[in-house]
Amino acid sequence: MPAPVLDHGVVPPLCTPLTPERELDVPSLERLTGFLLDAGVHGLFVTGSTGEVAYLPDDARYRALDVVAGMAAGQVPVLAGIVDTATPRVIAHAHAAKAHGARALVATAPFYAPTAAVEFPAHFRAIRAAVDLPLIAYDIPGSVHAKLPATVVAELAADGTLDGVKDSSGDLDGLRTLLELVDAPGFRVFTGSETMADVAMFLGSHGLVPGLGNVDPHGFVRLFEAARRGDWTAAAAEQRRLRELFRMITVGGTRIGPYASAVGAFKYALVARGIIAGRTTSLPMAALDDAEQATVRAYLERAGLS
Amino acid sequence: MPAPVLDHGVVPPLCTPLTPERELDVPSLERLTGFLLDAGVHGLFVTGSTGEVAYLPDDARYRALDVVAGMAAGQVPVLAGIVDTATPRVIAHAHAAKAHGARALVATAPFYAPTAAVEFPAHFRAIRAAVDLPLIAYDIPGSVHAKLPATVVAELAADGTLDGVKDSSGDLDGLRTLLELVDAPGFRVFTGSETMADVAMFLGSHGLVPGLGNVDPHGFVRLFEAARRGDWTAAAAEQRRLRELFRMITVGGTRIGPYASAVGAFKYALVARGIIAGRTTSLPMAALDDAEQATVRAYLERAGLS
Amino acid sequence: MPAPVLDHGVVPPLCTPLTPERELDVPSLERLTGFLLDAGVHGLFVTGSTGEVAYLPDDARYRALDVVAGMAAGQVPVLAGIVDTATPRVIAHAHAAKAHGARALVATAPFYAPTAAVEFPAHFRAIRAAVDLPLIAYDIPGSVHAKLPATVVAELAADGTLDGVKDSSGDLDGLRTLLELVDAPGFRVFTGSETMADVAMFLGSHGLVPGLGNVDPHGFVRLFEAARRGDWTAAAAEQRRLRELFRMITVGGTRIGPYASAVGAFKYALVARGIIAGRTTSLPMAALDDAEQATVRAYLERAGLS
Amino acid sequence: MPAPVLDHGVVPPLCTPLTPERELDVPSLERLTGFLLDAGVHGLFVTGSTGEVAYLPDDARYRALDVVAGMAAGQVPVLAGIVDTATPRVIAHAHAAKAHGARALVATAPFYAPTAAVEFPAHFRAIRAAVDLPLIAYDIPGSVHAKLPATVVAELAADGTLDGVKDSSGDLDGLRTLLELVDAPGFRVFTGSETMADVAMFLGSHGLVPGLGNVDPHGFVRLFEAARRGDWTAAAAEQRRLRELFRMITVGGTRIGPYASAVGAFKYALVARGIIAGRTTSLPMAALDDAEQATVRAYLERAGLS
Repeated sequence: MPAPVLDHGVVPPLCTPLTPERELDVPSLERLTGFLLDAGVHGLFVTGSTGEVAYLPDDARYRALDVVAGMAAGQVPVLAGIVDTATPRVIAHAHAAKAHGARALVATAPFYAPTAAVEFPAHFRAIRAAVDLPLIAYDIPGSVHAKLPATVVAELAADGTLDGVKDSSGDLDGLRTLLELVDAPGFRVFTGSETMADVAMFLGSHGLVPGLGNVDPHGFVRLFEAARRGDWTAAAAEQRRLRELFRMITVGGTRIGPYASAVGAFKYALVARGIIAGRTTSLPMAALDDAEQATVRAYLERAGLS
Repeated sequence: MPAPVLDHGVVPPLCTPLTPERELDVPSLERLTGFLLDAGVHGLFVTGSTGEVAYLPDDARYRALDVVAGMAAGQVPVLAGIVDTATPRVIAHAHAAKAHGARALVATAPFYAPTAAVEFPAHFRAIRAAVDLPLIAYDIPGSVHAKLPATVVAELAADGTLDGVKDSSGDLDGLRTLLELVDAPGFRVFTGSETMADVAMFLGSHGLVPGLGNVDPHGFVRLFEAARRGDWTAAAAEQRRLRELFRMITVGGTRIGPYASAVGAFKYALVARGIIAGRTTSLPMAALDDAEQATVRAYLERAGLS
Repeated sequence: MPAPVLDHGVVPPLCTPLTPERELDVPSLERLTGFLLDAGVHGLFVTGSTGEVAYLPDDARYRALDVVAGMAAGQVPVLAGIVDTATPRVIAHAHAAKAHGARALVATAPFYAPTAAVEFPAHFRAIRAAVDLPLIAYDIPGSVHAKLPATVVAELAADGTLDGVKDSSGDLDGLRTLLELVDAPGFRVFTGSETMADVAMFLGSHGLVPGLGNVDPHGFVRLFEAARRGDWTAAAAEQRRLRELFRMITVGGTRIGPYASAVGAFKYALVARGIIAGRTTSLPMAALDDAEQATVRAYLERAGLS
Repeated sequence: MPAPVLDHGVVPPLCTPLTPERELDVPSLERLTGFLLDAGVHGLFVTGSTGEVAYLPDDARYRALDVVAGMAAGQVPVLAGIVDTATPRVIAHAHAAKAHGARALVATAPFYAPTAAVEFPAHFRAIRAAVDLPLIAYDIPGSVHAKLPATVVAELAADGTLDGVKDSSGDLDGLRTLLELVDAPGFRVFTGSETMADVAMFLGSHGLVPGLGNVDPHGFVRLFEAARRGDWTAAAAEQRRLRELFRMITVGGTRIGPYASAVGAFKYALVARGIIAGRTTSLPMAALDDAEQATVRAYLERAGLS
C-alpha cells in the first residue's frame, strides 16, 4: 500500500486574492503561498470553499492551481477542490486539476438537484474511476445540504475509492463515528473546524484544514503540534486564542452576507498583515466598511498578530 | 416599453435526451422540440432543472441550446437556464447562452456558499448589466435553499433588472404576495408547479413551466387555455388528471434518488410515447428498473396517453 | 351516518381575553363570543393556537370553554382545542373538554418528544376511544414540527377515527391531495389560512378557521358565502382586503416574538374595535408599544373597520 | 454566595417505570432509584425527557417525584423537569415540583407557539421569580426547535436567574462558547450527551445527564471520575464502550418512532438487568418486538452488562 499523499498536518484552504478588477492577483497568491509554507504547513488546499471556489470561473480556478503548485514545487502536496453541482461537471474539473498540478482531489456530494445518500457511492466511484489521483470526500452540509453518512464513507474507504475525508460538518459526534467505523490503513480524516480543532485531534483526526489558517498559520501549526504530542492543555490554550480570533468572521453582522463577512475578514486581515495587496472579493459580495475593517484589526491585535 | 419576450403561456423545461454513452442525443432533442411545438407551447426552456442542467458539462448545455434554438427558429422564444453557484460563473453562462441563441435568461440566486437576501439584488443586477437579454429570476428554494423575497423581486422588477420570475417554490401565498407587490407592466410570473397550475393561474400568473409538460404538453396547453378564458372548472378537471399523472415522479421510491426518479420517469415516458430514443440519465443517477418502467406505463395509460 | 357536528362555515379560533393580572376576563370573552355570533359565524373554536392555548393553565382553558359554551347555548357548535405534548395528556384534556361543553375536539399530533408518522394513527385512535366526541386532527407543522401525511388522515377518516381536519400547514397542494384521497362522506376539511381561504374553498374545503376572524368575522363570512356560491371574483376581492389587514401580525417586527406580535395585534384590534377590555397577553409575551398600536389602528382604518 | 445545589457529577434522567395498565410502577421506580444511588450517582433528575415527561399526566409526574425524593432522602439532590409549552404552565409545574420535594428545577424555552430568543429572558425570569428554587435551563433544540443562545444564558447566569444549564443540544462548539462566556462562580454546565461526555468534560463541563445512565450508571460514573482526574485516555476508553452500548436506541429502526425506540430500549434493558418489572411505555409508543429485544440483550452482553 502506498503512503498517503498527505499523511497529517495543517492544510490551509487558500484564499484567492483578486485585483480590484476581480482578476486573479498572482503576486499576492504567490506571497500567500510563501507565507504559509514558511509557517510550516503540511499541504495546500486550492479552490476550497474559503478560496471562493463557488464564485471563480474555470480559468481562474485552474490558474490559481498553477500558481500554487508552481510555488509548492513538491515541498508539500497541493490539493484541489473540484466543487461543482454533479458528477459529470466534477469530473471535468478533476481532469483539469490533474493537468494543472493537483496531487489530490477534494469533491463534495452532488448538490442543487435533489439527491440522496444512496447515490453518493456512484458519484465518488465515477470520479475516482475517471481520474487517477487520490480522492478526498468533502463533507460540508452547510453548502451541500446533505451529510455524508459515516457508513457510506467507510464503505468507500474500504474499497479504495476514498483516501480521506475533509469534515466541515461541525458534527464531532459523526466525526468520531467515522473514525470508529473506517478500517482502511491509509485513510485520513481532516477537520475543517477552526474552533474545535483540538477536539478533532483528540478524537483521532489526522489534520486540520482551517480557513483561518490563512490568517494565522503559525497558530494552527502550534495547535497541531501540541495535539500530536498529546499536550491537550497547550492545544486548548492555542485553540482558545484562535477561537477568539475566528470571531472576526461575524464582523459584517447582517449588513452583508455571512460568507462575504467571513472571506472579507480573512482577506482584509491578510492585507493588514501585509501578505496580499487587496481585499477584493467576488461578486456579489459586498466589501467590509471602514468600521468593520477596524474591528478586524482589533481582533488581530488582541491575538498578537498586528 | 417593449413587449415581453414571453408574454404568457406554457413553456416546458425540456428534458435533455442522452445517448447510452451519455452524450447529447441530438435527433431525440429535435424530436422532443418538434413534439412540444406541435402541441402548441408558447416557449421553450432549455437547461432548466428538469433538463439536468446541474449535471451537464458546459459544452452539452450550449449544444442543447443550439439544437432547440435552431428548431424553434423564432416561432417561439427560447429561454436558457444559466444555473451555477455564483455571479461570475452565472455571467459566463449568460454570455454563452446569448451566443447560442437564447432570447431570455433564467438565473437562480447564488448557492453553495452561504449567502443572504441582502446580496440578491447585486447578483441579479450584475448579470443584467453583463448581458443584454431579458432576465428571469428562478425561485427554487428546494435547490438553492433560499427563497427569493417578494420585496426583493418587486424592487428588481421596478428598476428594470428583472423581466419576470419563474416560481418553483411551491409557495402559493408568496406567489400571490409577489403578484400584489409588483407594479411593472411587462413583468411576467410563471409557475413551475405541475400540480397547482390552475391555482397559480387563478391568482394571476401568466404562464406555466411544468417539467411534466415534456410528457403531456397538450394537457398543460388545455389547462392554460381553460384558465385564460376563466373556465376554472375545466382547468381544475385537467389539473386533476395531470396531478395523477405527475405521481409518476415517485416511481423510484427510496431505491434511487428523488431527482433520478422524477427525471427517469419523464424520460422513460417520452421513450414509451415514442418521442426520444433512450431513457439514459446523467451520472450518478440510477436507472428505473423494469417494474418501475411498467408503473410509468400504467400512469400513462390511466392518463390516456398510451 | 349522523350529520357532521360542523358541516361547513366560518369557525374563528377565539382569542382569550385576559385581565391586567392575566386572569381570564370573562365579560370580554362573553362580548367577543356575542360579536362573533352576531356576525354569523358557524362555529366557535375555543383554546386553539390563537387562543393562547399553549400558555393557558388547565383551569383557564376549561373556564374559557365554559363561558363560550354557555354563550353559544347550542346555537352553533363549540369546538375545543386539546393541545398537549402527547397522548395521555391530550386524553386528560379531552375528558375535561367534554365535561365543560365541547361538542367536538381538535387535537394535534404529539410534539416535544421525537415522534414519527407511524405513531400518529395510534395517537388519534387512543383519543377517539377514550372520549366519545367527534375528533378533528389539527395539522399545524409550524408548532408540531411534523406534517400529518394525507395518507394517514385518509386512513383515519375511513375507519371513523377522524371527523375532519383543520389544516394550518399552509400546504395547499397537500390540502388538495387530502381532499382527493379522503373518501368518507361526513369528513370535513377546514383551513386555518387567513390569506388563502378563497383558494382553499376553491379546492373543496368546507370552511375556515381564521385567527383574523376574531377581528373581522364579517369579512370572512362574506368570503365564505361568495365562495359557497362559486363567485370566485368576489371571494378573491374580499380575500385581498383581508390579506392586507392580516399584515398587522408583523407589527412587532423583530422587537418581540412573532406570536406575541400576531396575538398582540389581534387583541389590540379587538380593544380598538370596542369588543374586549384589554390587550394583555400571557407571559412571557411582550406588549405592543404605542407606535405598534397606532400601526394596528391604521390597518383597521384601511380595511374599513375603524 | 451559597454552594450550588448540584456542584458536579453524574445525574441520570430517570426512566419512569409503568405497569402494564400504564400507571406509575412505584416499586420499580424505587428499585431504579436505589440502583442508581448504589452506583454512586451525584444527583437524580426526575421527569426529564428520558422520563417520558411529555407523556405523563400531571399526577404521574408529581407522584414520580415524591417516590424519588423519598428514596433519595437528602443523600443527593433531586432535580425536577418542569416541561411544558409556555411560562404560566411551566410555573404551575414549578410550584408543584417544589411541593413534591424537588431541590432544583429544569425548564426549557417555550415551545409549540412560535417564540423567539428575545422572549427567553422574560420566560426564565418569571419562573425564577415565582418559585424560590435553583433554576437550570434545559437546552434541547431537538424538542423545542430553538437553541438557547450562549449570550442569553450568560446574561441570565450573571443576574442570578439561572444556576446552570443542561445542554442536550449536541452542539459542543456552542457548549464551549457558553463555558467561555459565563462568568458566574456557582454556574454549572451539564451535558445531556451520552456519546461525547468525555469531550464535554474536557471542555470544562461539570457533569453528565445521560439517559443511558439508567442502564449503565457505573460506566458513566467511571467516565466522570476519569475525566475529573484528567485521565482522558481512560475516559475515552469508557466512552467508546458506552457509545457502542448507546447504539441500542436505534433498535426499532423505522418500524416505530425514534423516541419509542430509545426509551423502549432503555426500559427493556432495565428489565433485562433485573431492575424494573416491565418495559411498558406511554401511548402512543409501540413496544419493541422479540427480535428488537434480543438485539438489546446483545448490546448489553457486548458491553459486559449481562
